[in-house]
Amino acid sequence: MSSLSLDAADAIADAVIERARALGKAVSVAVVDAGGFPVTIRRSDGARPLTPDIARAKAYTAAVMQRPGKMLKKWQESQPVFFSQLSQLPGAAMPIMAADGSVTVKKDGVIIGGLGVAGGTADEDQQIADEILETLGYELEFPAWGVPGKPTGKE
Amino acid sequence: MSSLSLDAADAIADAVIERARALGKAVSVAVVDAGGFPVTIRRSDGARPLTPDIARAKAYTAAVMQRPGKMLKKWQESQPVFFSQLSQLPGAAMPIMAADGSVTVKKDGVIIGGLGVAGGTADEDQQIADEILETLGYELEFPAWGVPGKPTGKE
Amino acid sequence: MSSLSLDAADAIADAVIERARALGKAVSVAVVDAGGFPVTIRRSDGARPLTPDIARAKAYTAAVMQRPGKMLKKWQESQPVFFSQLSQLPGAAMPIMAADGSVTVKKDGVIIGGLGVAGGTADEDQQIADEILETLGYELEFPAWGVPGKPTGKE
Amino acid sequence: MSSLSLDAADAIADAVIERARALGKAVSVAVVDAGGFPVTIRRSDGARPLTPDIARAKAYTAAVMQRPGKMLKKWQESQPVFFSQLSQLPGAAMPIMAADGSVTVKKDGVIIGGLGVAGGTADEDQQIADEILETLGYELEFPAWGVPGKPTGKE
Repeated sequence: MSSLSLDAADAIADAVIERARALGKAVSVAVVDAGGFPVTIRRSDGARPLTPDIARAKAYTAAVMQRPGKMLKKWQESQPVFFSQLSQLPGAAMPIMAADGSVTVKKDGVIIGGLGVAGGTADEDQQIADEILETLGYELEFPAWGVPGKPTGKE
Repeated sequence: MSSLSLDAADAIADAVIERARALGKAVSVAVVDAGGFPVTIRRSDGARPLTPDIARAKAYTAAVMQRPGKMLKKWQESQPVFFSQLSQLPGAAMPIMAADGSVTVKKDGVIIGGLGVAGGTADEDQQIADEILETLGYELEFPAWGVPGKPTGKE
Repeated sequence: MSSLSLDAADAIADAVIERARALGKAVSVAVVDAGGFPVTIRRSDGARPLTPDIARAKAYTAAVMQRPGKMLKKWQESQPVFFSQLSQLPGAAMPIMAADGSVTVKKDGVIIGGLGVAGGTADEDQQIADEILETLGYELEFPAWGVPGKPTGKE
Repeated sequence: MSSLSLDAADAIADAVIERARALGKAVSVAVVDAGGFPVTIRRSDGARPLTPDIARAKAYTAAVMQRPGKMLKKWQESQPVFFSQLSQLPGAAMPIMAADGSVTVKKDGVIIGGLGVAGGTADEDQQIADEILETLGYELEFPAWGVPGKPTGKE
């Protein structure tokens, strides 16, 4: 299922950690494959004990929901109870978290995984994730559900 | 892992129970190490059966989130769904509770554990925890996340 | 429900920890009331992180099963599947563990709680628990189930 | 809590993955701190989706039980029901797995974390973990519980 190699995932994770360090932040980062299974998870010195799992849940959500967290947040706001119940579905291995710092990993139009960043502010987590994916040549445009072909951009 | 000895934890617990008794309250108290594992848990005569576990979850939260509950309450208010999902993360052994009477135990700038008090009013639980930690020489100032160096005080 | 005061529970816990220390062992100890709820739990310096919970499950079992673990072990041996399912019952808050170092706390013929000791060898845990309870005036004789009045002794 | 830096954990993980690759095996590797929280988790290309979590549970177990899996297997054999119930304790965040490829990370006599390797045969997982830790200067001798000072070696 995964066409996201460990080398590619580590390149993302290394860049995230270095970028966060430049901002003076200790973050955790997780990269999962298209099925939501971990490829690499890393916790910087000083990042809190649960941040690797927060990053993982963000990455999982972006991979299996196939959209970045910032798009899911709108869904969660409009249907909070329904959205919270997604995490209780039999196939859901992690909490489905609508959060910043949660970005779907896409290349050549194919969704190949998810990236989660945790430990900075919401804005920082999001900015770092977007920047690194863009720099490494991944695609950040996703159509809204039900509106195929119409990209929603990075708003 | 723990640099919080049983003697040090018991000194905290004894003082909490005595202070609560002076206020006419029967409380439970828990002290955990930096990884959230119990060092001492005590229930005063008259405190309700679940209060030792409430105190434990408060102590656990303050230890692994590395911030007192009063700071976490702000996070919970701004992101209630996300915050509630922290308790479902694979690495979380206890509910992550944003509550009064939940204080991180810090000495010489190092986080060494968590203290939880339950059984009084929210204000009493908090006041007792703060007073006892301060009296015993622990540090109560924690920087806001993302703003290292800028303490938020005991507001 | 509990007629086991914190002072009485702490007297047991203090004596257990001191006795273990004299043997060169770091143990955890838990004392629960007749309903299985914690009164005091303590972890000696050097005892492993899960030992307080092991001690608690032992104490819980001895309290709510109303027999010491050494008696439960015979039941477990004869009906292993049935016994293991006890832990899945809706009212079971802890694993029902048939183990050494798990002793029902009884005074004047009334069951008032449970004591669990973990961290030594099975024999040490049991010996310490029995010695301390006997020294402090608790009763160690329990009739076999279904054979009221016929004590089984401390075999 | 952790005195195991990300750099130190990554050095272990890199060496494990490279060593496995030389054997023609795709493995997952996890390194956790002394409280069992993740520092680094990596899955080689070709390793099965659940192997990162198997590696994590092995690392968690070796950290919080403070002994390598090969020592725990003896405990599990003598008390299978009791051992399986450890995973149900309130403080246990992961299954407590007695397995090969599960080694406690110790330096200068202090337990600082756990290493888990999964994906090879049991013997390979164990051999790789031992070799890498030894090469990197960690200590592999642990006393049997209850017999302090008498190391049991790598038998």
